[in-house]
Amino acid sequence: MSRIVMKFGGTSVADLERIRNVARRVKKEVDAGNQVAVVVSAMAGTTDQLVGWVEEASPLHDAREYDTVVAAGEQITSGLLALTLQNMGIPARSWLGWQVPFKTDDVHGAARIKEIDTTNMRERLEENVVCVMAGFQGIADDNRITTLGRGGSDTSAVALAAALDADRCDIYTDVEGVFTTDPRIVPKARKLDKITYEEMLEMASLGAKVLQTRSVAMAMNHGVRVQVLSSFTDTPGTLVVDEDEIVEKQVVSGIAYANNEARITLVGVDNTPGIAGDVFSPLAEGNINVDMIIQNESEDGLKTDITFTVPQGDVEKASKILEDAGNVKFEKLISDNNVVKISVIGVGMRSHAGVAATMFQTLADKGINIQVIATSEIKISVLVDSEYTELAVRALHTAYGLDGE
Amino acid sequence: MSRIVMKFGGTSVADLERIRNVARRVKKEVDAGNQVAVVVSAMAGTTDQLVGWVEEASPLHDAREYDTVVAAGEQITSGLLALTLQNMGIPARSWLGWQVPFKTDDVHGAARIKEIDTTNMRERLEENVVCVMAGFQGIADDNRITTLGRGGSDTSAVALAAALDADRCDIYTDVEGVFTTDPRIVPKARKLDKITYEEMLEMASLGAKVLQTRSVAMAMNHGVRVQVLSSFTDTPGTLVVDEDEIVEKQVVSGIAYANNEARITLVGVDNTPGIAGDVFSPLAEGNINVDMIIQNESEDGLKTDITFTVPQGDVEKASKILEDAGNVKFEKLISDNNVVKISVIGVGMRSHAGVAATMFQTLADKGINIQVIATSEIKISVLVDSEYTELAVRALHTAYGLDGE
Repeated sequence: MSRIVMKFGGTSVADLERIRNVARRVKKEVDAGNQVAVVVSAMAGTTDQLVGWVEEASPLHDAREYDTVVAAGEQITSGLLALTLQNMGIPARSWLGWQVPFKTDDVHGAARIKEIDTTNMRERLEENVVCVMAGFQGIADDNRITTLGRGGSDTSAVALAAALDADRCDIYTDVEGVFTTDPRIVPKARKLDKITYEEMLEMASLGAKVLQTRSVAMAMNHGVRVQVLSSFTDTPGTLVVDEDEIVEKQVVSGIAYANNEARITLVGVDNTPGIAGDVFSPLAEGNINVDMIIQNESEDGLKTDITFTVPQGDVEKASKILEDAGNVKFEKLISDNNVVKISVIGVGMRSHAGVAATMFQTLADKGINIQVIATSEIKISVLVDSEYTELAVRALHTAYGLDGE
Repeated sequence: MSRIVMKFGGTSVADLERIRNVARRVKKEVDAGNQVAVVVSAMAGTTDQLVGWVEEASPLHDAREYDTVVAAGEQITSGLLALTLQNMGIPARSWLGWQVPFKTDDVHGAARIKEIDTTNMRERLEENVVCVMAGFQGIADDNRITTLGRGGSDTSAVALAAALDADRCDIYTDVEGVFTTDPRIVPKARKLDKITYEEMLEMASLGAKVLQTRSVAMAMNHGVRVQVLSSFTDTPGTLVVDEDEIVEKQVVSGIAYANNEARITLVGVDNTPGIAGDVFSPLAEGNINVDMIIQNESEDGLKTDITFTVPQGDVEKASKILEDAGNVKFEKLISDNNVVKISVIGVGMRSHAGVAATMFQTLADKGINIQVIATSEIKISVLVDSEYTELAVRALHTAYGLDGE
């Protein structure tokens, strides 16, 4: 007997036929003798409609009311799934965030989980009742509904799995698992059987939209075994686990790309001590997330060029902040949206030399110019012109021996 | 300064444009210096969609899950109206049933109100915050959402008005008030400025679908001054008040009709003592609501015919119950759906003779045969063939001097 948490996203519960499909998957786990808690998202499209209404009602909206309206989506699905399960003869009940209670701080719209009291739910699980929890929502100390931010249902599921000491947290989605890269670009991409938390974290934050980054970090912190799998096929998915569970480590596990960043270059900056701080402090205060950074000194050492990347939506705001900052003198500001960040990721990198050299050589062989480089322990990222996206990803996928049959 | 409760039904909040219209009406009351609590229904169509989903998910549904799903409708509207008010510069917040808390018993789907703790809401009202409450919903002792049954938002509003000691409860709907009869049948029907609780109760239960019966009874019991008015025009509505507030009492205030009943006649019943009990006890046990009853003895006194009315949807069930009841012997059972119950209503009837005589004479003059008669202190009802509905209502409207200009 295991205790498992199963999470189903919006496309998996898009209509009643799909909810019945979900119920059949739940039934299989129940029939296998498992205790099952299920976390559901809103039916696909519902959240967008509710958010649209909120924005139309009040462009500058009160986040507490936003949460009240939007949380209704998951509320509906949780009740409908409980009913569908009951109709199949499986004891089930729904739990809204405030009923669990799933306690969060009061940062409405992007609340952080404080404490999940699973006393009542554990009792029901022991009675073999399937507990269907509305994802994405919680309750703050002021007794008002909070939401965890878009994609928060993954985080709800992992947090619930941790709180329930579940043996596994299965995240059902519309893809079959985590791939070595985007199969739409590289037909030879392979599904990974296992991936480490650290790798998944890099993959998630780099645009492989399989799992929400925050949920991966939480799974890593609490040691929750997460499985990503499809709710539409019966093939096994990808297990996200601790590094020591993976016997044969790949040097490189996957290639990720993110095309939602923009490059900003400040040309001819006065090269004075502390200039980097002068540039990046006001951006941080403006809540702009700066990612890759390089600084090139001019020959005489008097001027420097500073290049960095920001989310594309923040380019105008960042430019304005820098132009208004009195203590940053530069000749001109150049921004470019036509860039892509390509990353090779793998925990095996730690013990293998030459991974970076392979990347640079492969790109050079294809005539692709690298604009910025950034590295971490298990990742090397480069910024290149976005028109090379597919070419670069495919070449790297082959170079690191990731191509499947 | 008054404290008022305003209630808006589904058609009044059907979309964001109409919600803005509602917000403007609320603003008017706020600008006039009033403390305002608002009760809202689900956007028109939402409840039907949610109920449809529930029924598809599980034909024999768990009423607790039904309530969880369906209550989402009012939740959405309450948040959207609060946001719309805020956007107009009016401080507002939403309250869900469980947040008030609006405590009910645990009869899910048709819960009765036990206690409304208005401590928090009163505080906010004193700070001139508009309190928007989701109608139709409450919370049971087991911490699960309950609903009051269809049309329950009227009851929510009246109950909240009573709990808040409100000076008035304005029920906004898609008609301009309570009319002397259905204006679709009688173009000369007049809107009543005032009507007594008792009369309204008879009107409501007889099919004039302006106010839910239960809300009228509650208003009467708690002395809540209710006003029925249109959310689409600016004309004054109808005030529902105590009898002593109406100076010049009409003998007859209105003519109501209900065409959702069916007549059942048991022909040739053995006329033994206690036979009426033998007939109606099993129907009551079967939860069938019997309305009008007459019994005619045959000349020899050995046989009797028993005629009564039941809701049309219960005819088959009632017939089966009587055929299966071993101790009721009858020659045959005749049922007829083509009947209408027409009622004249007025508190002035108590002190005026001849009201019934006028009714019978008027119908006789038109050649309309009366099948059953039932009377109460302030009402006379007759059952006639449904094809005479319009003719009978119009003739009676004229006979009692109710026709407008």
